[in-house]
Amino acid sequence: MAAPRMTPDLPTEQWAQVVEETGKPVVYKKIPVRQPGPDEVLINIKYSGVCHTDLHAVNGDWPIPTKLPLVGGHEGAGVVVGLGSLVEDIKLGDYAGVKWINGTCLQCSFCQQADEPLCSKALLSGYTVDGTFQEYCIAKAAHVARIPKECNLEAIAPVLCAGITVYKGLKESNARPGQTVAIVGAGGGLGSLACQYAKAMGLEIIAIDGGEDKRAMTASLGAKHFVDFMASKDVVSDVKAATEDGLGPHAAIVVAASEKPFQQAADYVRPRGSVVAIGLPSGAYLRAPVFDTVIKMITIKGSYVGNRKDSAEAIEFFRRGLINAPYKTCGLSELQKVYDLMQQGNIAGRYVVDTSK
Amino acid sequence: MAAPRMTPDLPTEQWAQVVEETGKPVVYKKIPVRQPGPDEVLINIKYSGVCHTDLHAVNGDWPIPTKLPLVGGHEGAGVVVGLGSLVEDIKLGDYAGVKWINGTCLQCSFCQQADEPLCSKALLSGYTVDGTFQEYCIAKAAHVARIPKECNLEAIAPVLCAGITVYKGLKESNARPGQTVAIVGAGGGLGSLACQYAKAMGLEIIAIDGGEDKRAMTASLGAKHFVDFMASKDVVSDVKAATEDGLGPHAAIVVAASEKPFQQAADYVRPRGSVVAIGLPSGAYLRAPVFDTVIKMITIKGSYVGNRKDSAEAIEFFRRGLINAPYKTCGLSELQKVYDLMQQGNIAGRYVVDTSK
Amino acid sequence: MAAPRMTPDLPTEQWAQVVEETGKPVVYKKIPVRQPGPDEVLINIKYSGVCHTDLHAVNGDWPIPTKLPLVGGHEGAGVVVGLGSLVEDIKLGDYAGVKWINGTCLQCSFCQQADEPLCSKALLSGYTVDGTFQEYCIAKAAHVARIPKECNLEAIAPVLCAGITVYKGLKESNARPGQTVAIVGAGGGLGSLACQYAKAMGLEIIAIDGGEDKRAMTASLGAKHFVDFMASKDVVSDVKAATEDGLGPHAAIVVAASEKPFQQAADYVRPRGSVVAIGLPSGAYLRAPVFDTVIKMITIKGSYVGNRKDSAEAIEFFRRGLINAPYKTCGLSELQKVYDLMQQGNIAGRYVVDTSK
Amino acid sequence: MAAPRMTPDLPTEQWAQVVEETGKPVVYKKIPVRQPGPDEVLINIKYSGVCHTDLHAVNGDWPIPTKLPLVGGHEGAGVVVGLGSLVEDIKLGDYAGVKWINGTCLQCSFCQQADEPLCSKALLSGYTVDGTFQEYCIAKAAHVARIPKECNLEAIAPVLCAGITVYKGLKESNARPGQTVAIVGAGGGLGSLACQYAKAMGLEIIAIDGGEDKRAMTASLGAKHFVDFMASKDVVSDVKAATEDGLGPHAAIVVAASEKPFQQAADYVRPRGSVVAIGLPSGAYLRAPVFDTVIKMITIKGSYVGNRKDSAEAIEFFRRGLINAPYKTCGLSELQKVYDLMQQGNIAGRYVVDTSK
Repeated sequence: MAAPRMTPDLPTEQWAQVVEETGKPVVYKKIPVRQPGPDEVLINIKYSGVCHTDLHAVNGDWPIPTKLPLVGGHEGAGVVVGLGSLVEDIKLGDYAGVKWINGTCLQCSFCQQADEPLCSKALLSGYTVDGTFQEYCIAKAAHVARIPKECNLEAIAPVLCAGITVYKGLKESNARPGQTVAIVGAGGGLGSLACQYAKAMGLEIIAIDGGEDKRAMTASLGAKHFVDFMASKDVVSDVKAATEDGLGPHAAIVVAASEKPFQQAADYVRPRGSVVAIGLPSGAYLRAPVFDTVIKMITIKGSYVGNRKDSAEAIEFFRRGLINAPYKTCGLSELQKVYDLMQQGNIAGRYVVDTSK
Repeated sequence: MAAPRMTPDLPTEQWAQVVEETGKPVVYKKIPVRQPGPDEVLINIKYSGVCHTDLHAVNGDWPIPTKLPLVGGHEGAGVVVGLGSLVEDIKLGDYAGVKWINGTCLQCSFCQQADEPLCSKALLSGYTVDGTFQEYCIAKAAHVARIPKECNLEAIAPVLCAGITVYKGLKESNARPGQTVAIVGAGGGLGSLACQYAKAMGLEIIAIDGGEDKRAMTASLGAKHFVDFMASKDVVSDVKAATEDGLGPHAAIVVAASEKPFQQAADYVRPRGSVVAIGLPSGAYLRAPVFDTVIKMITIKGSYVGNRKDSAEAIEFFRRGLINAPYKTCGLSELQKVYDLMQQGNIAGRYVVDTSK
Repeated sequence: MAAPRMTPDLPTEQWAQVVEETGKPVVYKKIPVRQPGPDEVLINIKYSGVCHTDLHAVNGDWPIPTKLPLVGGHEGAGVVVGLGSLVEDIKLGDYAGVKWINGTCLQCSFCQQADEPLCSKALLSGYTVDGTFQEYCIAKAAHVARIPKECNLEAIAPVLCAGITVYKGLKESNARPGQTVAIVGAGGGLGSLACQYAKAMGLEIIAIDGGEDKRAMTASLGAKHFVDFMASKDVVSDVKAATEDGLGPHAAIVVAASEKPFQQAADYVRPRGSVVAIGLPSGAYLRAPVFDTVIKMITIKGSYVGNRKDSAEAIEFFRRGLINAPYKTCGLSELQKVYDLMQQGNIAGRYVVDTSK
Repeated sequence: MAAPRMTPDLPTEQWAQVVEETGKPVVYKKIPVRQPGPDEVLINIKYSGVCHTDLHAVNGDWPIPTKLPLVGGHEGAGVVVGLGSLVEDIKLGDYAGVKWINGTCLQCSFCQQADEPLCSKALLSGYTVDGTFQEYCIAKAAHVARIPKECNLEAIAPVLCAGITVYKGLKESNARPGQTVAIVGAGGGLGSLACQYAKAMGLEIIAIDGGEDKRAMTASLGAKHFVDFMASKDVVSDVKAATEDGLGPHAAIVVAASEKPFQQAADYVRPRGSVVAIGLPSGAYLRAPVFDTVIKMITIKGSYVGNRKDSAEAIEFFRRGLINAPYKTCGLSELQKVYDLMQQGNIAGRYVVDTSK
């Protein structure tokens, strides 16, 4: 097999955050830099967003086991520094992103219908293969996100999972421009991006979250209405009342971290409306009365991450300057602190780590 | 207002089955024949199917209250004998059917998008207005089903609710010709029609029901596979195994009368698959884990009855000779016996009452 | 039949512009005010947009003959002053609009699937029934557009045909938010509204028209790119070059008044792209090579006017303040002058007539 | 690079039909057997269908130039005898098919959305790379059609291009089960398969072709109606009259070899109907009046070959025994005779060549 093409003078060691045992703090340490296989690329990650999924990987509380030891992270933006022998269409020096879906078979019935995230052989960055909380990360060339050179790598990092995921969820909702979507958990990392994408897609937004800070933030991101679930005496009525005809939103995008909002949404979407579950609270259940679901013809569906096309589209919205969700940046070395904040709930927007610090 | 046009020599009294109090047996008695309003027709019902909904109306165990006293029934096929002054496009002597949706406003946002069953002003035959368990029934002209003259009125009666409803559910499943659907409760009144419609739509059928009689019956209706939920040790595995690639059916149509099958279906449909709830067991809930629903991108939806276009299409399948589900016929006077059998469960196929007996 | 409910003290005569003979100038004269039938409303038209179709009605150069004598006009906004005895859901004093589709049967297979514009019994305002170039106009209640009270009747008039029509065309194009549409004839009456709707729907716009005025105008309406067909040496290449990846727009909306652009669009839309014909130049043909159309999987389709739901949606965009296309207003008495300008080509935006002048 | 895995004792030379110069007869001669590259497979072709495209390749009368010298053919069914080093999921001895699309990049925006046939880097079997008119043919592993072992390789050969292509066209028509499609050229190689797929998809068929033989043949393949374009005085009226409501078919699938039927179809499909062009007569144009296309909302579209998923679905219909279109078999050595018959027009069904003869 031919040798990969590499940027000169790459280091052989790098800093990384490593999960050595689930349920324990991550360990910031030096590990080797790997070489890309024939259909892989090596990316010098500059920035990586931090996602709730990363915390689940650390805690080991999801039904699917992680690789161990594990380098987490799956929202990494950087520069291509190594190319496997079979890779075409990507050049050294290109900007590229590593997504949750690191690689798939490209041949099964799901890959054939552009549903790569459903491929049973999917490699998951920062979960079943090492991810982006390191300086140099490997990914399958066919799945690497192409990032145009005019994009800011720090700002685009959260788009690579959170952005793509909420954009996909909005597409799956089948809400059309001019229709109304409720975004449940609108002030969080996923929610704030969902507001921006929904606005760019011509949707009217009812943001649902708790507290005046979230109200102000979601308004600045494009939400026309806000329902404060902590202050409201009747969330269902208040959400319906926020629509012009009082019938409720056409869809609800649920990125909440607890179970109740998933069950409540079916009550306030209008007949023929859809509830799209995106968030993944551990052990939570969708639940709705058969009778009401049938006679109102409600759709409840799960939306996972985007495919490669969704990813390219989500990035194109960003390139056009339409996606400006708030984030805070800290050093990769401080990752455990971010996890601690997440554990306590209530981070507004997204955290990004700078792998050089 | 101009007088309606009527067939000569109509009687002024007729036999009907009347619910005088919910929870009590129906009363077979003589009641007056009504005159159609300007936008209504009067139909001499020849045959009417008996549906589980009728039993719910008698028992009063659904969240929506019925008219009282009530003439139930909403699968009535007969001959037009009266026309309101504004009615065009229907002639005295035409064959016509009375459906669950007796009339709607035709102007609200749901009617405008051909979702008449979601109209908040919908009149429901045999529930909020008198239905088809009488010899002469009123319905809004705009909603009366047109029945071609070559159709047998006895055989088509069950199509007018059960047929339309399962056809609608199959459309809502988004299963395409060549794909596989599980029909849960395949041997019952709705299920047997669902088998016939699914076959006519080019779908591969996995029938799910209990007992050898149901196996034989569903096979004769076009089901290629049968999973006996009473005999199976693992329904989920057995349903998946019945598909060529072992991934499970593309959709499940749930017409069952108990809660469990509604919850089980999400486990055996393939990723991207859909579960369509049609049956309406009292007090039942849909329930599915958020995690699995999201990462498999499962859709769970309710499908109510068909709109006018669905109804016309369902009748056209019948006209072509593609729908031959079994039914048993008895006199209208024997309706209470049919209810008693239903109450005990386990009627195979559909009962039809002959209003002349 | 019960008498209609009328606003007190309505006049019995009114000013109108009447086509007495096709091919001759319209005649401004007094004619009687009609009474609404049982399913109709009478609207005091305040403003009416002037459409190319009106000119075709005057010229009699379309394949379908007009009523004669004829009051033209089908973009009329006003106040409800009369209600037929069967009309519900509309009150005297409500704002309402008269559209091209004045009424339909609401029962045929097209009406049943919400394709009322395809109804073979459709009444056409200002074409087969009298329209909005008069002070008091009749329309079927089921088809009257509901206009919220906060809307400006002068500004909304052009939305009632031009707006609805281009919005429908954009929906028919299947272009999704984030994708690119070429609008051919972007600086005209239909085109300027198409730019505004496309922008509100999250679409990227390539405006195609001639001259610097049109460039400036379409830019102000939201077009990101402009191709000047009068200055361009190769329109096809220039349109493709205006897209980020050079593959061409996902759709082209053709509202041009000549034949060539309809044939050219199939050359620059990307593979899988669609060409939506909306404009109706007399005697023009769509034409495309079979070979290229097949191997690029191009779709060419006609889009007529919107149905009632499209109309309500188009009005809702306006209500939200998203539609601000330019128009000029003059008195109804000056209608012939507007026709003369149209005949010469080159009106930028839309003309509106004030029926009180 | 690792060596490919090969079945023992493969020959180094083989018989093939070679186009040495366009416009000249094909030459039956011995040529070397090639080795598969790392992402390719070698297939011992047993049978290959003969398609009009092959004749265009020989004649060189299409806008895209062919490879020269060229082994034509792109409907080849056989046994896998060689596997490149990177190939997974295929084993030596498996049945496999070579399609028109021999390979694509799997990474461009079209491949990402499962529109591989639109990939600008697509390799075309028997056109830009050597095809199936030889005993041993190379194809990209990702694009090879998987054929279940219970399938007859002779009978399935025509499915691999003609079957897939018409199935795709039927999907693109958006005709739903129960609706009516006209198949134009129903008695030819593509048309006869189109009849079988349409029937399996629950569609009602109006076959259009010329002569009593074609009438009988299409009836046996499932067509309910036949319009003889040679005998009919008014094809448009006759096609419309063949539908129950006289409004015309919902779609027309045009696999004709001349221009007129492509232009005629837009006249007889019902409003909202679609015309799907599949056949590729040299130099032909689609053509339709703008006015009628718009007010009837007609869609005219090109449908190219199927993607990998369409291919797998088309094969699955065959596996279930639903596709039994007539074909005649002769030796590969007799290929020129088949071309001569094609050139004269009027082959009913499809020709298949046996590579062993």
